[in-house]
Amino acid sequence: MSMEEASELRKDPILDRWVIIAASRGKRPTDFQPTPEPEQSAGCPFCGGNEGKTPPEIYAVRDPGTKPDTPGWEVRVVQNKFPALTIEASLRRSGIGLLDRMGGFGAHEVIIETPTHGQDLSEAPLQHINTLLSVFRARLDDLRKDDRFRHIVIFRNYKSAAGASLSHPHTQLIALPIVPLFVKEKLAAARTHFRHKERCIFCDLVEQETAIPDRVVLSNDHFVVLSPFAARFPFELQIFPRRHMHDYTMMTEEEQWGFAEIMKQTLEAYRHTLADPAYNMILQTSPTTVARPGHPEYWGTLASDYHWHVELMPRLTKVAGFEWGTGFYINPVSPEQSAHFLREQIGHDTKFATA
Amino acid sequence: MSMEEASELRKDPILDRWVIIAASRGKRPTDFQPTPEPEQSAGCPFCGGNEGKTPPEIYAVRDPGTKPDTPGWEVRVVQNKFPALTIEASLRRSGIGLLDRMGGFGAHEVIIETPTHGQDLSEAPLQHINTLLSVFRARLDDLRKDDRFRHIVIFRNYKSAAGASLSHPHTQLIALPIVPLFVKEKLAAARTHFRHKERCIFCDLVEQETAIPDRVVLSNDHFVVLSPFAARFPFELQIFPRRHMHDYTMMTEEEQWGFAEIMKQTLEAYRHTLADPAYNMILQTSPTTVARPGHPEYWGTLASDYHWHVELMPRLTKVAGFEWGTGFYINPVSPEQSAHFLREQIGHDTKFATA
Repeated sequence: MSMEEASELRKDPILDRWVIIAASRGKRPTDFQPTPEPEQSAGCPFCGGNEGKTPPEIYAVRDPGTKPDTPGWEVRVVQNKFPALTIEASLRRSGIGLLDRMGGFGAHEVIIETPTHGQDLSEAPLQHINTLLSVFRARLDDLRKDDRFRHIVIFRNYKSAAGASLSHPHTQLIALPIVPLFVKEKLAAARTHFRHKERCIFCDLVEQETAIPDRVVLSNDHFVVLSPFAARFPFELQIFPRRHMHDYTMMTEEEQWGFAEIMKQTLEAYRHTLADPAYNMILQTSPTTVARPGHPEYWGTLASDYHWHVELMPRLTKVAGFEWGTGFYINPVSPEQSAHFLREQIGHDTKFATA
Repeated sequence: MSMEEASELRKDPILDRWVIIAASRGKRPTDFQPTPEPEQSAGCPFCGGNEGKTPPEIYAVRDPGTKPDTPGWEVRVVQNKFPALTIEASLRRSGIGLLDRMGGFGAHEVIIETPTHGQDLSEAPLQHINTLLSVFRARLDDLRKDDRFRHIVIFRNYKSAAGASLSHPHTQLIALPIVPLFVKEKLAAARTHFRHKERCIFCDLVEQETAIPDRVVLSNDHFVVLSPFAARFPFELQIFPRRHMHDYTMMTEEEQWGFAEIMKQTLEAYRHTLADPAYNMILQTSPTTVARPGHPEYWGTLASDYHWHVELMPRLTKVAGFEWGTGFYINPVSPEQSAHFLREQIGHDTKFATA
């Protein structure tokens, strides 16, 4: 038996599903006892003043004249202390009969959203959210210079029920050497639709959904928040830019302000409607290498068919055997009901008017 | 806005993923506050003597001369009190532009494993487990007479972290009018392998994995328990029959005893290694209609390429944004480590010798 420490990517021998085996992150059976909601603020490695408790700074928005890994920052990016993937690992692919593996190559970063422990994203000033969105863009631009990365996922786990191990506000980034299954499936569906109709399926969907109010939760000039027709989870939401663009980094400055505004409103609606629920938020933008001619995963005119968006899902229900075994979900709240309750809440907060 | 009560099946407009919208099961945002582990025994609707508190009995193994819905049973099957799907619903498919829906047709049953509240499956006598396995077979045989069902999933959610809402030992069954995504993907992969090689991919996998001890947890004459090479979760396991058979109902009596034995040993190993963890168990057997010539989902000689099996996953880690957004998993324990810890535990319980 090998007690290896390095991460490894493995493909399921039957399904087109990859897994990161990150054996250094947790080890013995007794490490899995239930843990209470992490609430430590003293000694929190993400708090301002505790910069020495994290791996070195990769990027930061900080006051002029302040040095890396010292106070004076607004948003700070460091490597995850227990990275699932690292750039030191090998990209080598190998097979053993039916089994496929490759080295645990990639990047795993933490975007520390604020030096202030208790300042949740939904309560942050709009200016600050906009700065955070610019950091996402900067990290995408920087990491994409390395063409070994094929896809970059930016995601936010809020509260321990959603997988957060620290309560200090943070977002994570994982850069992968392969394009994940769901992203491939979305690209393939969008491609098929475009080939038949020469239209973006996401643009079509936004147009169809905004024509009736049932599943529209919020909207502004540049973005729409929808309760998806086939939502897997109660109060699951998707945020789409109105303008067709396949990549997050294509937003104009004005659009980015619109995104900051609608994200804040959406998170406020969650907080008030659902008693500050745990949630996962995922930025779904286009893969990196699929738009690069000559690459084995080149997809052609990606710009025409894909459309970046955000997925948001509160963790209110437990996922059970039926879902894990089938990929089929039971959602106990209809998407129309979810949209209704959120709109009702937003209406109570009269400062937000829906379209 | 429609506040509909009936269930409905909806397909994601982009992905090949179906969802059951079961709006009658939970309704208002305040219904999602965290609930403690359900521990009620007094008033438990599944306890012997409380038969009147469940929907009427569909099937039971009971003492001769005792009447339905009265005491005297060993295993009892009733409709789920809050069924996700019902046989009264319509099978009609309809589309609205990009969106596809059908009626919430199906069956949702609860298999109450014992009249005794505290008798967990891992501690039940082998004879009793064997009876339960016969009930699974009887329900599959009975429901398959109705050719509107295309696939039947039998699954066990143990403890609330795994989605159980009652602590009394029970298994659930859902009969579906469509074949779920993961099952279709498994069938397709098995079919492709068979076309190329004229061999079952699952048989090949079992042969390859049992040739080395790294990921074999347990085995007997008829079954093998493997720690999957690309396990999504720590201590995830798969149980395979050694003999090639595509369907659960094809087991011989002797094989069924072997299955009962290895299931009990596996659950005991979980209980002792992982401090009685929550888990999900799923019986993956062949769909119903795909083997029926002339059916739109007919798959041809299914008997050659598919191989029934069981998936088992303790709920030890939280699934987070990365996983929900990509279908890519991070597993903090290597499958070799998981197998090692379970084998070590089984070795301590010297009554179980591994192969």
